[in-house]
Amino acid sequence: MLNYITTGESHGKYLATILEGLPSGLAFDLDFVNAELRRRQGGFGRGGRQKIETDCVEIMGGVIRGKTTGAPLGLILKNRDNTVDALPDLERPRPGHADLAGALKYHQSIRAILERSSARETSMRVAAGAACKLFLREFGIEIASHVVRIGPASLPERSLTVKEIRALTKDSPVNCVCPKTARAMIRVIEKARKQSDTVGGKYEVRAAGLPAGLGSCVHHARKLDGRLAGMLMSKQSVKAVEIGEGDRLGSLYGSGAHDEIFYSKSRGYYHRTNRAGGIEGGMTNGEDVVVRVTMKPIATLARPLASVNMRTKRTEKADFERSDFCAVPAGSVIGEALVAYVLADAFLEKFGGDSMREIRRNYDGYRRQIRG
Amino acid sequence: MLNYITTGESHGKYLATILEGLPSGLAFDLDFVNAELRRRQGGFGRGGRQKIETDCVEIMGGVIRGKTTGAPLGLILKNRDNTVDALPDLERPRPGHADLAGALKYHQSIRAILERSSARETSMRVAAGAACKLFLREFGIEIASHVVRIGPASLPERSLTVKEIRALTKDSPVNCVCPKTARAMIRVIEKARKQSDTVGGKYEVRAAGLPAGLGSCVHHARKLDGRLAGMLMSKQSVKAVEIGEGDRLGSLYGSGAHDEIFYSKSRGYYHRTNRAGGIEGGMTNGEDVVVRVTMKPIATLARPLASVNMRTKRTEKADFERSDFCAVPAGSVIGEALVAYVLADAFLEKFGGDSMREIRRNYDGYRRQIRG
Amino acid sequence: MLNYITTGESHGKYLATILEGLPSGLAFDLDFVNAELRRRQGGFGRGGRQKIETDCVEIMGGVIRGKTTGAPLGLILKNRDNTVDALPDLERPRPGHADLAGALKYHQSIRAILERSSARETSMRVAAGAACKLFLREFGIEIASHVVRIGPASLPERSLTVKEIRALTKDSPVNCVCPKTARAMIRVIEKARKQSDTVGGKYEVRAAGLPAGLGSCVHHARKLDGRLAGMLMSKQSVKAVEIGEGDRLGSLYGSGAHDEIFYSKSRGYYHRTNRAGGIEGGMTNGEDVVVRVTMKPIATLARPLASVNMRTKRTEKADFERSDFCAVPAGSVIGEALVAYVLADAFLEKFGGDSMREIRRNYDGYRRQIRG
Amino acid sequence: MLNYITTGESHGKYLATILEGLPSGLAFDLDFVNAELRRRQGGFGRGGRQKIETDCVEIMGGVIRGKTTGAPLGLILKNRDNTVDALPDLERPRPGHADLAGALKYHQSIRAILERSSARETSMRVAAGAACKLFLREFGIEIASHVVRIGPASLPERSLTVKEIRALTKDSPVNCVCPKTARAMIRVIEKARKQSDTVGGKYEVRAAGLPAGLGSCVHHARKLDGRLAGMLMSKQSVKAVEIGEGDRLGSLYGSGAHDEIFYSKSRGYYHRTNRAGGIEGGMTNGEDVVVRVTMKPIATLARPLASVNMRTKRTEKADFERSDFCAVPAGSVIGEALVAYVLADAFLEKFGGDSMREIRRNYDGYRRQIRG
Repeated sequence: MLNYITTGESHGKYLATILEGLPSGLAFDLDFVNAELRRRQGGFGRGGRQKIETDCVEIMGGVIRGKTTGAPLGLILKNRDNTVDALPDLERPRPGHADLAGALKYHQSIRAILERSSARETSMRVAAGAACKLFLREFGIEIASHVVRIGPASLPERSLTVKEIRALTKDSPVNCVCPKTARAMIRVIEKARKQSDTVGGKYEVRAAGLPAGLGSCVHHARKLDGRLAGMLMSKQSVKAVEIGEGDRLGSLYGSGAHDEIFYSKSRGYYHRTNRAGGIEGGMTNGEDVVVRVTMKPIATLARPLASVNMRTKRTEKADFERSDFCAVPAGSVIGEALVAYVLADAFLEKFGGDSMREIRRNYDGYRRQIRG
Repeated sequence: MLNYITTGESHGKYLATILEGLPSGLAFDLDFVNAELRRRQGGFGRGGRQKIETDCVEIMGGVIRGKTTGAPLGLILKNRDNTVDALPDLERPRPGHADLAGALKYHQSIRAILERSSARETSMRVAAGAACKLFLREFGIEIASHVVRIGPASLPERSLTVKEIRALTKDSPVNCVCPKTARAMIRVIEKARKQSDTVGGKYEVRAAGLPAGLGSCVHHARKLDGRLAGMLMSKQSVKAVEIGEGDRLGSLYGSGAHDEIFYSKSRGYYHRTNRAGGIEGGMTNGEDVVVRVTMKPIATLARPLASVNMRTKRTEKADFERSDFCAVPAGSVIGEALVAYVLADAFLEKFGGDSMREIRRNYDGYRRQIRG
Repeated sequence: MLNYITTGESHGKYLATILEGLPSGLAFDLDFVNAELRRRQGGFGRGGRQKIETDCVEIMGGVIRGKTTGAPLGLILKNRDNTVDALPDLERPRPGHADLAGALKYHQSIRAILERSSARETSMRVAAGAACKLFLREFGIEIASHVVRIGPASLPERSLTVKEIRALTKDSPVNCVCPKTARAMIRVIEKARKQSDTVGGKYEVRAAGLPAGLGSCVHHARKLDGRLAGMLMSKQSVKAVEIGEGDRLGSLYGSGAHDEIFYSKSRGYYHRTNRAGGIEGGMTNGEDVVVRVTMKPIATLARPLASVNMRTKRTEKADFERSDFCAVPAGSVIGEALVAYVLADAFLEKFGGDSMREIRRNYDGYRRQIRG
Repeated sequence: MLNYITTGESHGKYLATILEGLPSGLAFDLDFVNAELRRRQGGFGRGGRQKIETDCVEIMGGVIRGKTTGAPLGLILKNRDNTVDALPDLERPRPGHADLAGALKYHQSIRAILERSSARETSMRVAAGAACKLFLREFGIEIASHVVRIGPASLPERSLTVKEIRALTKDSPVNCVCPKTARAMIRVIEKARKQSDTVGGKYEVRAAGLPAGLGSCVHHARKLDGRLAGMLMSKQSVKAVEIGEGDRLGSLYGSGAHDEIFYSKSRGYYHRTNRAGGIEGGMTNGEDVVVRVTMKPIATLARPLASVNMRTKRTEKADFERSDFCAVPAGSVIGEALVAYVLADAFLEKFGGDSMREIRRNYDGYRRQIRG
């Protein structure tokens, strides 16, 4: 039901996105969208670019007098550092980046490739995702994230609600719920920076307030777990996606791996554990959706790795472009946006409807139905 | 470019699939497809159903005189145990299955849900994937898999080629490259069976012979890593997907996380390591594509977990249906099929073409181009 | 929301289709589907093939105990004349057919092309469309068609309801509402047959009972007129599609070309004319959807046109295959099926829902809403 | 392979589009795109808005140093009359417009509906289509259009080449190839204007230089005729689409309705007639693609039709907004753009490739192949 495309280069004049499929009648809080963009720009470990830019989108279409109309939503951002046509080309592709494969595939300069494959594109994903968050919020669905690992520094296992995550990460420069772990993470990033190195990590995204039955078990393209994993893995730097207990479930016996089912008049069906991460059979089961996403270290290194000069074919050090040292805290904000997009899409698919009023009516009817 | 839908229920009369988008002129080796189906049926840990069925598809369309015509390929399989209309309904959804969410979503009996959400549907995914393997094979692209973990029994880290994997797993009842680990895996499955329990695991799928440049870095829906993760996570029981070093990359510094680039006249651009799992910037980089997939334990337990009787709302033990104890070896065969599908799709997207002759010409031209 | 693929060749062993996206809980009347298939096989002007075949589908999946489950619906039909591998190849492409372009595109024999491009594939479109009709019927949406032209014989302009069309065409061998015109049409077809010729024509499809608001005005891919025209023009032999007054509207002034708007408590908003054919701004406006579809004469002529022998490149007469003389009456049945598919798709897109119960609730809520 | 979304309202601040799927290495002639936008704004019969606006797009992304990079192409236009938030709402829907159905569907003010359903959105379709024209031009594919009817004034049947159409329409204020007919058309528009009326018409779009084999005969969604009809019918005001002889083919016998096939060493396979409009079996057959499109008269009348006040439910005259009297000449320019989009999409689907260099190589190989 939803569809989005982004356009723009890292150092181009604009970045923009069109999101098709939002219903009419949603109060469109532009300040919220821009606050999400600022969240993406923050986080300890970011480089110089974030000091130059203050990402702030303008509406191109889809909103009249502060409310969505059902028409495609267009959002645009002006880059301050918009020097793309003047920037020098690169000749030595950076290992870990799109540079080499992209230059071969598109028969292009590395510059043309990196300008698009750069994670700066994710600003538009955050903008589109923020619109989806505004939509989901109207139905009590809230999404939060926190960083659980940066390099060797990792958070001891804890289960937290969306509210707790928000409260605990509020002032954390690395979007971490535990101040002690956060300090360790910062030390890891500092070490990376000092050694002209970068560092990877892992974050969790959690969505609360979902009804059972989003997604489907009947057709591969409708399965919610597949759609979440596909969208998250499409994000720059992501190399692993887990749902619920994820990788750990491979080590377990079935008797300890599933979530028993309970019922009460006030809550309807519910579970006391959430190993499944809120998804069974490709559908939400009424518990929080929990995904864990691993990012590799940023591939642009100030102390570059070995590469090949594509002109001379000689072995040389890879080129360097201004970059961050660690993008995991920013990544977690982007992860929230992507989860919001996938959930909003599945929500619209399930409940249909073209206006907030209609969707709410359909949704309320279903909630009553499944309470028996 | 490719699209497939499957139909049929676990105990229905038929299972069938239509795969749209294969080119014309591909020799269609039906024996190979059926051999793949038998591979899926095998593996230590399977239950009674596999003894009843001998999966063997018949062609519904798309092949004339042994060659594909470019028309949609239809494949159909007849179930021996086709008693769906007579089977009793279930009232106590099985934790970990689609039962509860599906019954609520579709306002249906659990029977109607489990008949479709059952992993028996994957036979059709294997059939469609086998056709994709036949296609890829014509371009020297080969895919293999091996099981790296079953419950607590895991394979020590080893890097193996597709050929080595095939040779080493040939006679393994658990599709494992190491006989000693295989014995440990079998003991784990035996233990699960004896305790009326089930067990999860993990497998690796590896594809060799790929050119650089499949997938794309320019648009989320074209990224190969997203497409692989989406398709694999849509498979029954899968809870985690990693590409290359995957989860481990979150613990590393950039200097040790990427694959340096080299060039030689005979090989063109190449890498000496493959931490990226053959994908950088959403594109193949010329190295083997390597994915690792974690499956949770089968959710149908002979010693059932707590559930709720959906009629009475009372807490009762979950229902039981005949099932396997461990489906990880079978899962690895299905994983190969899904990887084959995604790679064939990306291959056709890149090289276009409607006949094998045309695709080969386009492909050869590109290979020459990127060798410089 | 809906998606279908068909498979099978004209003289292959099977024809089959999978329709993905139907909700659960729909009583699946297989007799109705087969009656629709018989309607497609009938009509004056058909050739020998229809005497050999008695099209009758079997369910491959998606139905348990007579009701849809929400899973993909699979339908399959066995051809009696299933000799495709033994049939001789053709060397002289038939003008008007896919033969030449297909043989070039797919680097294939003409046999491989004609077996798939043959209108026999439309049996599967009728089967899928019949399932959509069953769905729409539950909401009081009914579809009928009638032939308005066969060659020079055309029906004087009349506006008829779906009920009237059904009653008046009931016993017509050419699906025509007027016995006198029908006789003229039959004479035209007889003349074509005697002269070893074929003849084209035109039919109207009308759908009644639609709410205002299916389709959309906000995005090209959501517009209902585009979706109808796209699906109808994709049918074999179709060369023109009109909505409402269609082509005539190009000759008119605005004051006489639009449908004035009225309101009454009992009917809500309504129109007294229907020049728009029930679609304004890409959406249903509450009136009957009316499309008119023109078919060219069948391209297989017993007295063949000039062609080229693709082996020798010499000018020769085109090859001949057993064929019909006029397929317009059959075409009108297929047109109904395609309109049913597009409307069901738009209906599901608007009202969401996974079960008949849920869709009905959503639909009723909307109907109340738009009555003000 | 291609995908586009537009955003923006008629009186919003911006109109923009993102076109995903263009290859890299295409010289992007922004002046050509803007010249196409000016063509759309011209034509006798346009109202006041075209005097206010001088449509001129800026690039948001996808182009570096004057060449496409393979990344999504973003184009944006600034409206001068961008008063949407201040404009009064309407209460009386205009017959023939999206007003009524849109207000009901989206539970919105008529203002919110008309701002999006307005044909001003087609400026972005022209911009995206111009990019497609630039792409096709590199392969010698050229597209032109001419108006063949405005109300009662119609062009006597003539067959013209793309070159002839361009030469003959060059200075025509109504994009008509015949000065005498053009004068009659202008008189019709003048009459409409004087009578506060509007008038419909019809245009032809013709594309030359196409290879045989674009589109397909194997699957409904790949058929080129369906894709053309779907895209053209999705355009505001269009009510009929014909391919080749179109509607007339319904009156004919087969012996006079098809195009005989010839071969010569210099031309390969060819036809001496083009009744099929260049498409047989859902594929190009090597002749010019010819479509004819009928537009209803503009629905905004200065002497309004009867409508209903949606607040009071009383019968009143429909509201009036500044509008054109006849948009058929402009429509023909938009039709060219849509045909260009569909053909570029089919071209990329057939030839694959990511760079102009690769596509050209693939294309040349195919041309050689089908020459035998």
